[in-house]
Amino acid sequence: MATQHGDVVDLAEKLALFSEHWAPKTVAEVGDDEVKVVKVKGEFVWHTHEDVDELFLVLAGVLTIQLRDGDVVLHPGQLFVVPRGVEHCPRAEEEVHAVIIEPRGVVNTGDAGGPLTATVERI
Amino acid sequence: MATQHGDVVDLAEKLALFSEHWAPKTVAEVGDDEVKVVKVKGEFVWHTHEDVDELFLVLAGVLTIQLRDGDVVLHPGQLFVVPRGVEHCPRAEEEVHAVIIEPRGVVNTGDAGGPLTATVERI
Repeated sequence: MATQHGDVVDLAEKLALFSEHWAPKTVAEVGDDEVKVVKVKGEFVWHTHEDVDELFLVLAGVLTIQLRDGDVVLHPGQLFVVPRGVEHCPRAEEEVHAVIIEPRGVVNTGDAGGPLTATVERI
Repeated sequence: MATQHGDVVDLAEKLALFSEHWAPKTVAEVGDDEVKVVKVKGEFVWHTHEDVDELFLVLAGVLTIQLRDGDVVLHPGQLFVVPRGVEHCPRAEEEVHAVIIEPRGVVNTGDAGGPLTATVERI
């Protein structure tokens, strides 16, 4: 539903619009932050966002966020904030659907760069 | 699960910790924003947050966000951002569980004040 003040965002509808992994898509903005949806499977790359916190909220599947001192395991309805400057590497045995909230313009691979770096589309 | 970098937040567990309506509780911080959970039922008060956007994500129930030019209806898995400066009044026939994301320190009743103004606890 669209209003003159913005659209209702249905997370499942947005997730149905794409199939690629590790490529977050922006679905809303709130203040200086973007709300993104993402599908992930397999292992990402170890990386750090020096200046920004990154929130992961799992909608479906089980997401492991590897930290250098241990793993965080997130089931649907659970969230975790990776604090700025903390190296992390997400991993998922089976496909996970998640919401990410972080400031506008964050690069998914942080300081690591490389082939998994994705341009963030708005959908 | 607690880590040295923060806790896993289970939204359902947090919502089970309280029963009062219209009293958002902070469960996480990300950057300058707070992530809150709230239970609502009935009608709130018309109010405006002049300087901040306010995101509502419905987890259970059906939330109507009344705007002066029409209603936004949110079902579970749907979100809407009330832009800064837009007068709004949430309403729910039956109890709704929702997530709110907005900058730290926002007062729930905005410019309206009154008896529904709640001190935001962290849980």
